[in-house]
Amino acid sequence: MSVTVTETTAAAVEFAKTNGKQFVEELKELLRIPSVSTAPEHRDDVRRAAQFCADELTRIGMEHVELIETATVDRPGGHALVYAEYLQATGKPTVLCYGHYDVQPAEPLDEWKSPPFEPTERDGNIYARGAVDDKGQMWMHVKAIEALMVAGHGVLPVNLRVILEGEEEVGGEGIAKFVREHGARLKADVALVSDTEMFAPDLPTLCVGLRGMIYTEIEARGARTDLHSGMYGGAAPNPFVALAQVIAKLKDEDGKILIPGFYDKVAAPTVAELQAWKALPFDEEEYREAEIGSSALTGEPGFSALERTWARPTLDVHGMPGGFVGSGAKTVIPAKAVAKVSLRLVPDMTPAESFAQYKSFVESICPKGIQLEVRLIHSGDPIVVSTDNEYVRAATESMREVFGKETVFVRGGGSIPIVGDFVRELKTPTVMMGFGLPDDNLHAPNEKFHLANFHRGIESIIRFLAKVGAA
Amino acid sequence: MSVTVTETTAAAVEFAKTNGKQFVEELKELLRIPSVSTAPEHRDDVRRAAQFCADELTRIGMEHVELIETATVDRPGGHALVYAEYLQATGKPTVLCYGHYDVQPAEPLDEWKSPPFEPTERDGNIYARGAVDDKGQMWMHVKAIEALMVAGHGVLPVNLRVILEGEEEVGGEGIAKFVREHGARLKADVALVSDTEMFAPDLPTLCVGLRGMIYTEIEARGARTDLHSGMYGGAAPNPFVALAQVIAKLKDEDGKILIPGFYDKVAAPTVAELQAWKALPFDEEEYREAEIGSSALTGEPGFSALERTWARPTLDVHGMPGGFVGSGAKTVIPAKAVAKVSLRLVPDMTPAESFAQYKSFVESICPKGIQLEVRLIHSGDPIVVSTDNEYVRAATESMREVFGKETVFVRGGGSIPIVGDFVRELKTPTVMMGFGLPDDNLHAPNEKFHLANFHRGIESIIRFLAKVGAA
Repeated sequence: MSVTVTETTAAAVEFAKTNGKQFVEELKELLRIPSVSTAPEHRDDVRRAAQFCADELTRIGMEHVELIETATVDRPGGHALVYAEYLQATGKPTVLCYGHYDVQPAEPLDEWKSPPFEPTERDGNIYARGAVDDKGQMWMHVKAIEALMVAGHGVLPVNLRVILEGEEEVGGEGIAKFVREHGARLKADVALVSDTEMFAPDLPTLCVGLRGMIYTEIEARGARTDLHSGMYGGAAPNPFVALAQVIAKLKDEDGKILIPGFYDKVAAPTVAELQAWKALPFDEEEYREAEIGSSALTGEPGFSALERTWARPTLDVHGMPGGFVGSGAKTVIPAKAVAKVSLRLVPDMTPAESFAQYKSFVESICPKGIQLEVRLIHSGDPIVVSTDNEYVRAATESMREVFGKETVFVRGGGSIPIVGDFVRELKTPTVMMGFGLPDDNLHAPNEKFHLANFHRGIESIIRFLAKVGAA
Repeated sequence: MSVTVTETTAAAVEFAKTNGKQFVEELKELLRIPSVSTAPEHRDDVRRAAQFCADELTRIGMEHVELIETATVDRPGGHALVYAEYLQATGKPTVLCYGHYDVQPAEPLDEWKSPPFEPTERDGNIYARGAVDDKGQMWMHVKAIEALMVAGHGVLPVNLRVILEGEEEVGGEGIAKFVREHGARLKADVALVSDTEMFAPDLPTLCVGLRGMIYTEIEARGARTDLHSGMYGGAAPNPFVALAQVIAKLKDEDGKILIPGFYDKVAAPTVAELQAWKALPFDEEEYREAEIGSSALTGEPGFSALERTWARPTLDVHGMPGGFVGSGAKTVIPAKAVAKVSLRLVPDMTPAESFAQYKSFVESICPKGIQLEVRLIHSGDPIVVSTDNEYVRAATESMREVFGKETVFVRGGGSIPIVGDFVRELKTPTVMMGFGLPDDNLHAPNEKFHLANFHRGIESIIRFLAKVGAA
């Protein structure tokens, strides 16, 4: 059996190499679909992307391919899940492959060197919104499965379920509900998620922890209608000034969040984990210069940059819609303004408790003459996953074969809400094997995916799936 | 002569009454031109509005009508001045009639009950952007002149110069430069400005003081590019949080501005003026409820609302462009964000000194990891004008004849930059006789002009011009 698997693996790897250019062309087709899940005007595009993935899963030989609707009366904007399975590998483990076909908005458009939805190859990279997050990485799964399917003449060495969602960038509520209500349909021995990044170029990486989040809006209302600041300035409350006062009270200048009780549940990483982080090839000054490019790093004193971004909660403001934002001058005191504020959470914080603390504190510091409304837009649980199991070993072995290096274990500062649901609801061990690079401009203009990593990712996944099947 | 003037006045008033509807139709034509001076995309519209005014001044018999270019290499966006004169009334005083044909942006468009550039009559008002500020009030001047011209069979009882600008809403730099360089062309005994409001319906009002202003932008830059807040939150500086911290330090929660030295030059109103203000029909609670509609008024303790809006400096934030402002969620730490901040000034503050104090203070409180750029967009001087002269008496008599009431003297919280220039550069006494109402929604959605006041304004101006000529 092992020989057969090895032969199948070799044939699959060979197929992937031979067809690498074709895989990229297919990915480009998918990247051309502006499946921006947060934008109602792109609803049809999101649907098209789902159908594109479903069609390809059908074409490569997956079974029971289905678009599962998540829109309901309460949630009319829900985007479909794409499901596919192969359950003919009797007695073998089942791998749940997860990815998402939705993308972040592309704004600001004028900062893209090539248009966000016209994928363009430059310097060994493919540039497009979603190139690495997550269409490119999701496509690695599909292509690895195709390669194994071709190599095995329609027989896979492992059982598979594939679940793709279209709401990852807006909180993943649809898939979360599906997992809660129909978890059995995603029953698997291990989940494979490729939506994270490598710690450094050529350094195979598994992500073993993610921050959670609450994404909120604070709406401040003052006067009944927009007012002329000349006539009313000095008497009418200003919603932007009020929001500034609130934000300045939420986080001190060192980056410590001032919400009472907010840090109570924060669990420190283990000593072993902290030591492993110190051994990573990471230089804060280089990180500041090369990745961030600001005059200084910010954040809580007494914690390293990795601790601050992986294991400490944070607060960020993403935009403050309202008032006059055109060029030039308009002397308006707007009736209302909004701050889009997110807070990242770490184990063992919970979104529900953290949001309650936040909302209560914001309301308690409401400035005079202003009415505040604090809204939760979406949330995700923070998680840490176990590294002591056969699936993690299969992953590290696969990547060693491809990269010739030992895998490092890191955490991610971002959120992949579904991973929390897999762990919490399905009790499924999750392997987060990602192939992005730190400078891939996730969520920013000029998002890219290094094509070498796209191909290495496909080979790593072929090997991983084969190893799990051979175990 | 006095009899002739009285007869001319009566005939002119009669003409204005007979043609009132026609005047409104003409005004509507002007209001349909979206002459938003701050918006480069409306440059042609601004020009069209200028030409519209020039054509009408020519048609009614004014002489030497001219569009005076203000655009230069350094200021390519400058909008033309419209000039016209009638200087045949030998031995008579010269009145300089000032108005502006540009308007504020109309955003937010969805809050208008009828489209901002489709003037609509409702409940005795005309609704449109610029209805009262200042196209409608400027049109009162033009129509008063026309009425006198018709009544006098082409002969006016007074000398006139008319100067209309297209940059009042963006700081009036073009006319200011013209006044500095070609002041002699605007030489007059008195300037008449109708760009202010009546203190209450049916209460004739002269404005005798205006706040000045500095309109600024603070641009905060953190990271080199937009970053994912999950990956970088806790290490990357957030420009919105930085701006919030800066704004919260510029003004305390009572509304006191914290810029060192900012209040040093503030001149208190005279005891007589303060007493007159106390006698005005004004109730702070009613003002809060009816005009502002917020849960409380804000501003410095120890000063009445009239003092705070007329005679105390203030700080307002008008908008904070940058980042993600769409619906839904985007987890971005933007590379930059901007706060549009204006400060109102009162006598004897100066824009130059106040801006220097502000800029220096903002730079001194720049948050860690952030680079701030403080830009002056435009400015205007605060002014107070004398009330003890024959022109003010002519104005109060004219309005008594129309309204049957004594005139009240008030100040305005807003800025009309050119008035400072008339006073300072030309030493021209200025009569600010305005006919707007406090609820006319200047600079806000649903701007309107009460049509009765449009007609009373025309009659008041006819009488004023005739009286100045008869003096």
